[in-house]
Amino acid sequence: MTAIIGTWKMCLDGLREAHELLQAGACAGDAVVHAVTRVEDNPAYCSVGYGGLPDWDGHVMTDAAFMDGATLRMGGIISAENIKNPILAARLLCGRETNCLLAGRGAELFAVRHGLSMRDMRTEESMKRWREAVRERPERLTAYTGHDTVCVLGLDDAGHLAAGVSTSGLFMKDPGRVGDSPVIGSGFYADDRFGAAAATGLGEDIMRGCLSYEVVSRMKRGQSPKEACEEALRELSARKMELGEDAGSISLIALAPDGRFGAATTLPCFPFAAASGGPAGLYAADLHGTVRSVRPEELDGVD
Amino acid sequence: MTAIIGTWKMCLDGLREAHELLQAGACAGDAVVHAVTRVEDNPAYCSVGYGGLPDWDGHVMTDAAFMDGATLRMGGIISAENIKNPILAARLLCGRETNCLLAGRGAELFAVRHGLSMRDMRTEESMKRWREAVRERPERLTAYTGHDTVCVLGLDDAGHLAAGVSTSGLFMKDPGRVGDSPVIGSGFYADDRFGAAAATGLGEDIMRGCLSYEVVSRMKRGQSPKEACEEALRELSARKMELGEDAGSISLIALAPDGRFGAATTLPCFPFAAASGGPAGLYAADLHGTVRSVRPEELDGVD
Repeated sequence: MTAIIGTWKMCLDGLREAHELLQAGACAGDAVVHAVTRVEDNPAYCSVGYGGLPDWDGHVMTDAAFMDGATLRMGGIISAENIKNPILAARLLCGRETNCLLAGRGAELFAVRHGLSMRDMRTEESMKRWREAVRERPERLTAYTGHDTVCVLGLDDAGHLAAGVSTSGLFMKDPGRVGDSPVIGSGFYADDRFGAAAATGLGEDIMRGCLSYEVVSRMKRGQSPKEACEEALRELSARKMELGEDAGSISLIALAPDGRFGAATTLPCFPFAAASGGPAGLYAADLHGTVRSVRPEELDGVD
Repeated sequence: MTAIIGTWKMCLDGLREAHELLQAGACAGDAVVHAVTRVEDNPAYCSVGYGGLPDWDGHVMTDAAFMDGATLRMGGIISAENIKNPILAARLLCGRETNCLLAGRGAELFAVRHGLSMRDMRTEESMKRWREAVRERPERLTAYTGHDTVCVLGLDDAGHLAAGVSTSGLFMKDPGRVGDSPVIGSGFYADDRFGAAAATGLGEDIMRGCLSYEVVSRMKRGQSPKEACEEALRELSARKMELGEDAGSISLIALAPDGRFGAATTLPCFPFAAASGGPAGLYAADLHGTVRSVRPEELDGVD
């Protein structure tokens, strides 16, 4: 049994290839990393990797993490610049007994010393948008619309789960700002015995509920991936409502050890891609708990 | 009802004062921050704040976090240099809707812009130990013996819980290395409804089990703080054993909304300080699950 799920329409092409890799016998980690790098390398996606939108000081800073469900080990980079594929650095760091999570210059030195490709992550388009934003000075930072952090969860034929996430973070964020993505338990979690989960949306809110760990804990207690995502999200949303806050922007995906997948969102439409048993396809979840298969053209204008 | 608990013998003096503050009507956040700053300012403690031991490149880098159990909001700094009291920066960041967790230069700029004191955190003693270590080149990094991250959990008369943690991280760690301390759910978690928890020891291992969130989840499901710490630790230790690893060095503390406290450890002796109802005193937990009140002189030679 192989299965794979990833956030947003933008991951569909890479996910399809990654699913073929899984079916050909690749391990979950290789498949997940393949799907994530495809999004990182595409400058059309302004929230991940090359072409990602910068901080207010004009620097494109990336966060990424990788987790191996067999060993519960992770690797991650925080607020690092010029690493062409942040997920490759995270993967390389995974398995280290110490020093597996590196921030800033330390992460960059690690990448250089290990022969990873470095590149200027800025594009003409991303710097144009930055110059406009600097003139406009946004009052409040909000999550992206239609796409955001790429998160991929994979299950291979040996029964191993892996999780990979990569993001350039909120557009116009403060220098050094870290969201949920490289934070274990919030942005991602994977445990071969119970399942894997990952989150996308406003990182500061996702962290308040340690949502990925909460989803996996619920699967451990017998909930399906869909139930677990829904209940974890409902609980945090209810608490936010009590505090007088709106539901915000949070979407969750989950994958069980038997290949079932699920998702939940606070958005009117959260597109994701998944394959379990059959070929990879597109799905859309909504804030009412509906998850349905969609054709790509139904999501035109959504990344 | 007021109560407070903190890791290691080193926090006793500050904890005593913090408990007096709580009894005089201070909020949990003020009490926690007071106790943590007392440890940060004392150069005798080489794992926290001023006098903390450096990375292998000679820089003293600090991580700190603060969480407010009423709002589930946190603030934190990651891998930041020269901030005299990292916990004050974390506290100031808590409550921000975005940009509440800052790494590196971004955290330092925040501290300077908000008027926090900056200082060279190196002492003659810490640099002497660093020069020795550079000559010796340790093969493997291990957690400190006898003391480590300072973690303090407080409960005030209004029923609010707060958590604060501060560390300079593993001695001779790689530049940019981040442990569990600034990672919500791993190093700390606080929820007024269910309780608060924090962890000290080898951060890379603590993160694998999101131990602080796991402890609070267990209190939510009805376990006592002591049971919750023990069970969370037992579960991760069992998994590590299955993977052929030793139990390592992990200690947990927890505080319930009714003022009961608890702790668990993989160490032969884990000293902590606590006050609940009565005056602040010293306790020691051991790997067999015994927690007993101890006199300071019983812990001579232990920080």
